[in-house]
Amino acid sequence: MNNVSPLKNIRVVLTQPSHPGNIGAAARAMKTMGLDALYLVNPRKFPHADADARASGALDVLQNARICTTLADAIGDCVLAVATSSRQRELRHEMMSARQAASAMIESAAAHPVALVFGNETSGLSSEEAGLCNLWAYVPANPEYASLNLAAAVQIFAYELRMAAVDAVHSPAPEFDAATNEQVEQVYRHFEETMIATGFLDPANPKRLLPRLRRMLARARLESDEVNILRGFLKTVRKPPTQ
Amino acid sequence: MNNVSPLKNIRVVLTQPSHPGNIGAAARAMKTMGLDALYLVNPRKFPHADADARASGALDVLQNARICTTLADAIGDCVLAVATSSRQRELRHEMMSARQAASAMIESAAAHPVALVFGNETSGLSSEEAGLCNLWAYVPANPEYASLNLAAAVQIFAYELRMAAVDAVHSPAPEFDAATNEQVEQVYRHFEETMIATGFLDPANPKRLLPRLRRMLARARLESDEVNILRGFLKTVRKPPTQ
Repeated sequence: MNNVSPLKNIRVVLTQPSHPGNIGAAARAMKTMGLDALYLVNPRKFPHADADARASGALDVLQNARICTTLADAIGDCVLAVATSSRQRELRHEMMSARQAASAMIESAAAHPVALVFGNETSGLSSEEAGLCNLWAYVPANPEYASLNLAAAVQIFAYELRMAAVDAVHSPAPEFDAATNEQVEQVYRHFEETMIATGFLDPANPKRLLPRLRRMLARARLESDEVNILRGFLKTVRKPPTQ
Repeated sequence: MNNVSPLKNIRVVLTQPSHPGNIGAAARAMKTMGLDALYLVNPRKFPHADADARASGALDVLQNARICTTLADAIGDCVLAVATSSRQRELRHEMMSARQAASAMIESAAAHPVALVFGNETSGLSSEEAGLCNLWAYVPANPEYASLNLAAAVQIFAYELRMAAVDAVHSPAPEFDAATNEQVEQVYRHFEETMIATGFLDPANPKRLLPRLRRMLARARLESDEVNILRGFLKTVRKPPTQ
């Protein structure tokens, strides 16, 4: 198991990490499990001596880290982005366990880039950030004290990814042509415009419709062909006759 | 799963830990997984402010930690002691994976005290210490960089113990308000009718469109509310003007 290739397609995204020590410890956790792509969305302090110290032998992961200004940038070319939480219901999505999510990620990562997304140490992921992701995963933790350190959560997910990668060597995944997050975003915009055009959505009073639509599309894990089908259909939808 | 009782019979033993920060982080890792018995064999610095800082909300685990002068003392009353390593062959014993070892520990811990033993950060367990244990377990790690932080190794083992304990009870699935197959079928029919009405779908020549639509809807695992949103939208789609 020197080369677990799906792991090379998996990036860890830390959004707005507050403590540089946690960034370093996360890099070390990643490397021990064979992950090397680290993306940082608006880190408060980076680079930083504390990050280097806690990275230990994983300085290369830190040095190659990419800095992004938005989560959308960090995951735009991915076919699957998994939002993480230590609380089972926090994100108001149907949640998978870390083990289940790792298995899904390894399957997708056989051929495409995949992201594992962690929120800020204190506030976690915002619902907007979580809404950009396709799956939501939690670490089954003690309900009386589920406060995992950020790097500890990265360690558990990275470990489950490695375990799933080892399992997957024995059972290759079926191929399918997954849509990128960018394509899915286009479907979302197209729905939004069409819903406004038909009068279904009142842009002055959208209520919870748009976040729900986004969540549903993210969960559906569309294929490229399906993006074409949906957009093709939406193009044929005309404005209603004015009444 | 508030009370996973075998976990209460499992103690974590850190032998000669050098860095008090690691002791604190290990305590936090334990508590997040429902372990609370920490034994320290000749810690170099303890108690210590760094331990408290890294323990975060697990100060109680630190405060209740027992200090021992030998490993034999720390595990004397246990029916099973598991020595850990991040290297598969280091201890010159037949090694189990963390997952296999967790399962064995949970079984024994149903009725008896059980110990999970970690070595010093730099030197690991001596062969004499390892020889006092009954089983030897490793974290399957990147062979090119298997250097897990002590608290990270504790986190993975503690997580596997919790997972094994939950498996032993049986895990309840997270709740969400899933649509019935009938509701999804209605969405499918509604899409089909609307696609015909807009001219997107030619019923005389449907090609692969309908099975693809069905597959996409099945994969999306819709919730009841989403069924209402989609059908509500489709209702607002009018026929195109005849050309």
